[in-house]
Amino acid sequence: MSEFQTQAGLNKQAVEEGTAFLPRFDASGLVTAVVTDIRDGALLMVAHMNAEALALTIETGIAHYWSRSRGTLWKKGETSGNLQTVVEIRTDCDQDALWLKVQVAGDDVTCHTGRRSCFYRRVERDGDHAVLRLDVA
Amino acid sequence: MSEFQTQAGLNKQAVEEGTAFLPRFDASGLVTAVVTDIRDGALLMVAHMNAEALALTIETGIAHYWSRSRGTLWKKGETSGNLQTVVEIRTDCDQDALWLKVQVAGDDVTCHTGRRSCFYRRVERDGDHAVLRLDVA
Repeated sequence: MSEFQTQAGLNKQAVEEGTAFLPRFDASGLVTAVVTDIRDGALLMVAHMNAEALALTIETGIAHYWSRSRGTLWKKGETSGNLQTVVEIRTDCDQDALWLKVQVAGDDVTCHTGRRSCFYRRVERDGDHAVLRLDVA
Repeated sequence: MSEFQTQAGLNKQAVEEGTAFLPRFDASGLVTAVVTDIRDGALLMVAHMNAEALALTIETGIAHYWSRSRGTLWKKGETSGNLQTVVEIRTDCDQDALWLKVQVAGDDVTCHTGRRSCFYRRVERDGDHAVLRLDVA
């Protein structure tokens, strides 16, 4: 995969309505990736990709991310076995977010806590503050 | 809504398994918000919230974001009529992302381009680079 073209010098119309893939990396060189399960659309995780992770994902068909906590390239599932085969990638109007529809290998776990999804808690209002409730989606 | 408690001084266990809502705002003071339609789970948009937008969202039940392009608080749909009533909010393991399940008012449009979803283009490999195809999810 060659380097990605940037949005520099292009107008809004080209970015929003064109067919050129022009991922807009933020100041840290990252785009947001929303990851859902191809089977039922369940939201599994939200992660980030730098240009290398994105290029590797497109080239190999296996999801790669940038780990902000470790500061390294991250082939999701490399140690756990829960690799993500990417069935489809989408981008949004201004191309600063990606949507990956994936098939999860292994025992159907995506979250490092051992759960299928990272979004296992609901935010609820409790008087003048908010609390969390454990509640699988 | 009082100010949000921070993760400072708390261990991973408290953040990941506890019931305290401890949203982790990034260096720009933002958390990522993934927005899906309560009807069918369709991914509508990805946006960002600062503490004020998040507090207003929880207090009013109507989604508020931080517009990075305009640098202002953004009550989504205030001009278009496509307000988002928040049915459920979830957070992920490390609490740096939120998932909003919403009901969209008006003519079922979320994207400023007039479409239901911002994710109207698929990324496809074409030789050694990637291109976009217009293709509603």
